[in-house]
Amino acid sequence: MTVKNAFYAQSGGVTSVINASACGVIETARSHPEKIGKVYAGRNGIIGALQEDLIDTSLESAASISALKHTPSGAFGSCRYKLKGLDTHRAQYERLIEVFMAHDIGYFFYNGGGDSADTCLKVSQLSSTLGYPITAAHVPKTVDNDLPITDCCPGFGSVAKYIAISVKEASFDVASMAKTSTRLFVIEVMGRHAGWIAAAGGLASTPDCELPIVILFPEIPFNEEKFLSKVDEKVKHHGYCSVVVSEGVQDSQGQFLSDQGLKDAFGHAQLGGVAPIIANLCRERLGHKYHWAVADYLQRAARHIASKTDVDQAYAVGCAAVDLALSGRNSVMPTIMRKSDDPYSWGIGVAELKDVANVEKKMPANFISEDGFGITEACRRYLQPLIGGEDYPPYRNGLPDYVRLRNVAVAKKLDGEFQI
Amino acid sequence: MTVKNAFYAQSGGVTSVINASACGVIETARSHPEKIGKVYAGRNGIIGALQEDLIDTSLESAASISALKHTPSGAFGSCRYKLKGLDTHRAQYERLIEVFMAHDIGYFFYNGGGDSADTCLKVSQLSSTLGYPITAAHVPKTVDNDLPITDCCPGFGSVAKYIAISVKEASFDVASMAKTSTRLFVIEVMGRHAGWIAAAGGLASTPDCELPIVILFPEIPFNEEKFLSKVDEKVKHHGYCSVVVSEGVQDSQGQFLSDQGLKDAFGHAQLGGVAPIIANLCRERLGHKYHWAVADYLQRAARHIASKTDVDQAYAVGCAAVDLALSGRNSVMPTIMRKSDDPYSWGIGVAELKDVANVEKKMPANFISEDGFGITEACRRYLQPLIGGEDYPPYRNGLPDYVRLRNVAVAKKLDGEFQI
Repeated sequence: MTVKNAFYAQSGGVTSVINASACGVIETARSHPEKIGKVYAGRNGIIGALQEDLIDTSLESAASISALKHTPSGAFGSCRYKLKGLDTHRAQYERLIEVFMAHDIGYFFYNGGGDSADTCLKVSQLSSTLGYPITAAHVPKTVDNDLPITDCCPGFGSVAKYIAISVKEASFDVASMAKTSTRLFVIEVMGRHAGWIAAAGGLASTPDCELPIVILFPEIPFNEEKFLSKVDEKVKHHGYCSVVVSEGVQDSQGQFLSDQGLKDAFGHAQLGGVAPIIANLCRERLGHKYHWAVADYLQRAARHIASKTDVDQAYAVGCAAVDLALSGRNSVMPTIMRKSDDPYSWGIGVAELKDVANVEKKMPANFISEDGFGITEACRRYLQPLIGGEDYPPYRNGLPDYVRLRNVAVAKKLDGEFQI
Repeated sequence: MTVKNAFYAQSGGVTSVINASACGVIETARSHPEKIGKVYAGRNGIIGALQEDLIDTSLESAASISALKHTPSGAFGSCRYKLKGLDTHRAQYERLIEVFMAHDIGYFFYNGGGDSADTCLKVSQLSSTLGYPITAAHVPKTVDNDLPITDCCPGFGSVAKYIAISVKEASFDVASMAKTSTRLFVIEVMGRHAGWIAAAGGLASTPDCELPIVILFPEIPFNEEKFLSKVDEKVKHHGYCSVVVSEGVQDSQGQFLSDQGLKDAFGHAQLGGVAPIIANLCRERLGHKYHWAVADYLQRAARHIASKTDVDQAYAVGCAAVDLALSGRNSVMPTIMRKSDDPYSWGIGVAELKDVANVEKKMPANFISEDGFGITEACRRYLQPLIGGEDYPPYRNGLPDYVRLRNVAVAKKLDGEFQI
C-alpha cells in the first residue's frame, strides 16, 4: 500500500467535543505511518482545501494533539460553506483535485453535520465522477442531534448535559426567591428545527428531585392559553416554575415567536430572542416576576462540563473514520450504535453517506408528553445515558487549560488564488 | 453559660455558595451543644421570624447538612425584605422579640448583602433598644462583591469563575466560526451598579492565551463611537471579538441602555436586556454577524463550576459568625482578609456591623483600563485568586446531586398571624 497524506477539516457550527474527534482522527492516522503520511487540516473547513490553505498537523506535539480532547471549538477553524453540484460548479471540484494532487492527498475526513455530509459525499464521488482516487469518510458532529442512522450525534450529549444542569441550578435558585420575588425563570435554548436540546431541559427534573418545568418545543405550535394555564398550574403547586423554550418555537401560522419585527432605540431591527417574549407574556397575564437567560454559544462551548459519554463517542468516531478508510471503505460515516439503555452500552457502526447526506432525523412524536409541555419516559430513557459521566479539563489559574495549536501553514504549491 | 437556640436565615439574591455558609453555621453550632441548642432556620429569611415560620434543622442528618456545601441556592428560602426603622415600625421588632422568646432564641445569624446587614444591625440592637438579650452576627454574601471592609464577598468568586470560563469558551467558539459566519459574541452579565462581574470577563484573556475582549462597565458612560471603533480594531486584528456587557451600562445621560421602552407583539413592555442591543448596533454599523447570550441566574447558580476559594470562604464565614457570637461579640460580621496575592493567602477578620450596613464598595478606578474597555493589572491581581480552584459536586446519573432538605416546621407557639 502506498503512503498517502490525509485531509481533515471541521465544518458547520462547532461543539465542545468536535476537537475530540480531530484528536481521534490525527492520533489514529499517526499510528499508521505505513499508510498515512501527514494529516493536513483545512483552515476553515473545505475552504482550506479550495484555497490551498492547509495546516501541517505533524508540527503539533503529541501533547497538543491529545489536549484537543479537552478543548472546545474547532481548532483549525470551521466554515458554513456547502459544495454546489458538480454539473453547475465543476471548477470547484477540479480545484479540489488540483490541491489534493499537489499535496498527495488520498484520504478525506470531514467533520460536520448534515450539510457537511453532503460535501463529503460529493468528494467521495471524485473517483467515479472525475477519476481522482480518494477515500472519504464523514465524522459526525452536531449539537442538533439530527443526523440519521446514528443513535446520537457527538456534540449533542454535552449540550444536553449543560442545559439539564443549568435548568436544575436555576430552578433551585428561583425556588429560593419565589416567596417575595422571582417566580418564573425562562431559558432559551438552541434547536431551530427540532426540540432535542429543549427536551434535555426535562432531564433536570428527576423522580428523587422533582422540579416544575414547562418545555416549549418547536414541534408544537405555541398555544398561549394552554401555555399560561400550564405555568399557572405549576406556580400554584410548587410556588415557582422554569420554562425551557426552544429558539425555534412557532405560532400556529408557522411564524417564529422570536420574529417580532421590532426596532430598537438605534432604529435597528431587534432580533430579540424568544425568552424575553415568553417571560413578558407570563408577567402580563399571570403577574409573576421573572428572570430569563439565553444560553446561546455557552451551551455548545461548555467543555468544562462536557458529558464523558459524548467525549468518548466523539473521539471514537474520529478513530473509526480513519480505520474505515484504511480498510478501504469509501463514502461512509461511522455511527453510534446503542446496545442497551440501562446500563448504557454502545458500539461503532457504519452508514453509507448517501443515506446520511441531507436527511434530517426528527424527534419521535412519542418523546413529547401528551400535553405538549414535557418529555415522556421513552424520551428520558433515550436521553439519560447521553449526559452520563464528567470529563473535566485540566485547569491553570482557575481557568480550563485549553490548547491553541500552532497551525503552521503548509507551503503552497499552486499558483493563483481560488475565489470562493 | 445557659444554652440558647439560634436563628439562621438567608436574605437577598441567593448564590451558588450561600448554602456553604449555612453549612458552616449549622455544623459549628452543632459542635457546641453546651452553648447552642437547636438552629432554627427562618423560612424565607427574616419573614420566617416575623411569621413564626421556623425550620428545625436538627431534624436534618449530618450528611444532608454537609451536602449543603455543594448545593447552590438558598436551602431555607430567601427574601427581599428589609426591616424598617424602629421608630416607625415598632410592631415588627416587638414581634421578633415575641417569636425569639417563644423559641428561646439567643443567637441571630443573618446571611446576606448590604441591605441584610442593615436588618442584622437592627436586630443586634434589640438588647439596647428593647431590652431583649440577643447576640447577632451577619454572614456576608453577595455576587455583587460590594460589601465594605471584607476583601471580597462569598458568592462573587464563583460568578467570576463562571463568567471568565464562559467568555473563554465562547471566544474559542467564535474564533472558529469567524471566517464565514459569526465574528462577534456578546454576553450580558449581572452587576447593575458596579462592574465587578463584567471585570471578571477580562480574566478569560491571559498572557499565554490572549483573547480579544471588550468590556462595557456600568462605571463608564457608553460612548457609541469609541465602542464601535474598539470592536472594529479587535475584529481587524483577531478576526473576531467578544463583548462582555454589564446589565447596568448607561448612556451619557445616566439612562440604562436596556431601557428602550419597546413593546413586543403581545403589546407588552419589552424588557429586553442590553446584549441584543449591543449586538444589533455592531451588525448595523460594522456589518458583523453576531451571537449573544444572557447569563442571568445561570451565573450565580452555577455550583457545578464554583471556585474552590469561594466555597472555602463561604464555609469559613459561616463558622466564624458562630465563633464570634459564642465569644460574646455582638453586631459584627466576619470578613475575608487578604494576606497576599500570589501565592494567595487569606484569613478571617471581623467588622462592626454599623460600618457595613448600607455602605456600598465601588470598584477602584484603577481597575479599569485607560480606554475604559478592559481591566488593569491591579484588577487582575485582585480577581485572579478569587476564581482559583475547582470544587466539583458529586454527580448521579449525569446531574449534580444537590440536596433538598426536609425543612420540617417547628410547631408554632404563638396565636395569630403577623402581616408583613
